[in-house]
Amino acid sequence: MAGSELTNVKSPRVKAAKRLAKRAFRERDRAFLAEGPQAVREALASPGVVTELFTTAEAEVRHADLVEAARAAGVPVFGASGEVMAELAQTVTPQGVLAVCRFVHVPLAEAVPDGTELVAVLTHVRDPGNAGTVLRTADAAGAGAVVFTDASVDPYNGKCVRASAGSLFHLPVVTAAPVAATVAHLKSAGLRVLAADGAGTNTLDDVDLSGPAAWLFGNEAWGLPKEVLDLADEVVRVPVYGRAESLNLATAAAVCLYASARAQRTAPANGPAAR
Amino acid sequence: MAGSELTNVKSPRVKAAKRLAKRAFRERDRAFLAEGPQAVREALASPGVVTELFTTAEAEVRHADLVEAARAAGVPVFGASGEVMAELAQTVTPQGVLAVCRFVHVPLAEAVPDGTELVAVLTHVRDPGNAGTVLRTADAAGAGAVVFTDASVDPYNGKCVRASAGSLFHLPVVTAAPVAATVAHLKSAGLRVLAADGAGTNTLDDVDLSGPAAWLFGNEAWGLPKEVLDLADEVVRVPVYGRAESLNLATAAAVCLYASARAQRTAPANGPAAR
Repeated sequence: MAGSELTNVKSPRVKAAKRLAKRAFRERDRAFLAEGPQAVREALASPGVVTELFTTAEAEVRHADLVEAARAAGVPVFGASGEVMAELAQTVTPQGVLAVCRFVHVPLAEAVPDGTELVAVLTHVRDPGNAGTVLRTADAAGAGAVVFTDASVDPYNGKCVRASAGSLFHLPVVTAAPVAATVAHLKSAGLRVLAADGAGTNTLDDVDLSGPAAWLFGNEAWGLPKEVLDLADEVVRVPVYGRAESLNLATAAAVCLYASARAQRTAPANGPAAR
Repeated sequence: MAGSELTNVKSPRVKAAKRLAKRAFRERDRAFLAEGPQAVREALASPGVVTELFTTAEAEVRHADLVEAARAAGVPVFGASGEVMAELAQTVTPQGVLAVCRFVHVPLAEAVPDGTELVAVLTHVRDPGNAGTVLRTADAAGAGAVVFTDASVDPYNGKCVRASAGSLFHLPVVTAAPVAATVAHLKSAGLRVLAADGAGTNTLDDVDLSGPAAWLFGNEAWGLPKEVLDLADEVVRVPVYGRAESLNLATAAAVCLYASARAQRTAPANGPAAR
């Protein structure tokens, strides 16, 4: 490995990977970067996703399992000097492993078949850290899919990939979906479309959440635009019991998604209807 | 105002405010900075908290209500050049208003009297953005108080103040509280002490949350140490229904605090006890 270590930040391979920090290049190459052992591990667990692995000498020892998994899968592994890793990584203290990955998103109809119970839809979410956190939370809450509409941030943005903590590789993700067509498909797949917005007259506490549901989450500052609210079956707000004006987006999404997950799981056996 | 505008970043007044970015100076002066119109508005709503207001000429027009409120309360208002504001502000695009505030925390016994229903305790939380988000969420969920233990970040850190979105001024906050004494007081005040941790055998779905509760939240990476888990009445984990390894701290806190808030509010009519 030492002999083949990449030490030149201007080498074509390093430059080709580095430019994936920019959306235009990601879209051209249909590829993105996953940084750090957790993301790389999850990416390697999805066959055919990782096309190149970069690792520092130190990380090659510390994360020998990842290097071995990559080699076993026929993924080329490149040693990288600390300088090269710092050039490729987007974090201040890079963890020494970084994968070039193929796009993983799927078409909406494939991500949300009939019978899907829970879906998160990000419309107009602009902060990639928030988007990644919602993706991670949706995964934890057992969602069947996460949809990024065409007005939302790119799920392959490095900050989003990192905030998702591997969840980008766990469940079907749809990207650049037009919102009206998305809502139409969700409804036809049997999901109730709930818009999470402070404009809702009903709160989470008032709504029966036991059935299949898709949640629409909007912009960090201004929520959902009227035309999106109008598409939903219901506009629901997270109740604020104290003096806070609102919740932050990722927090509100967590409360909504977990309220649905809990109601869906407790409904059949011992839910409100049975009590 | 124009005549008294501060333009020199080395003037004693500017230097005295700027050093409040550092914890040691905050503790010496028992003062901190609140930045942006939302935080300043909430600070001004608490009598006696704001001791100085800095504003750019542009912000003085845009946020005339704040300047007026400050003057009405006898708070000295200083015009600040863009350069001075950039020196004082900790954000990349300062919003032009910034207040020097007196410490607002209170002793534990005052923050959590008998009969308090819901408390959030941050132990070992290190990221000020996370801490501020939990504070905001606790406020939204109707918590009676938020306690920062001595191993947690400083609630007056600028990032925490900003992430709290004004909630630092909404509910009693305790700082630098020793964790064991805190738990002892919470129990004596009639609260059940729940540690939120992946080590819990029971999940949120299994636990009766209808009574008064205090939630302990731990470190972003490693949760709560054993000695803190041992102090709690119960260790509870947020269920993960999908493939995510865990939730992020602020998200998990939101799910826990809202689960308690909801159970407490629905309990008297049709809660577990009545079933």
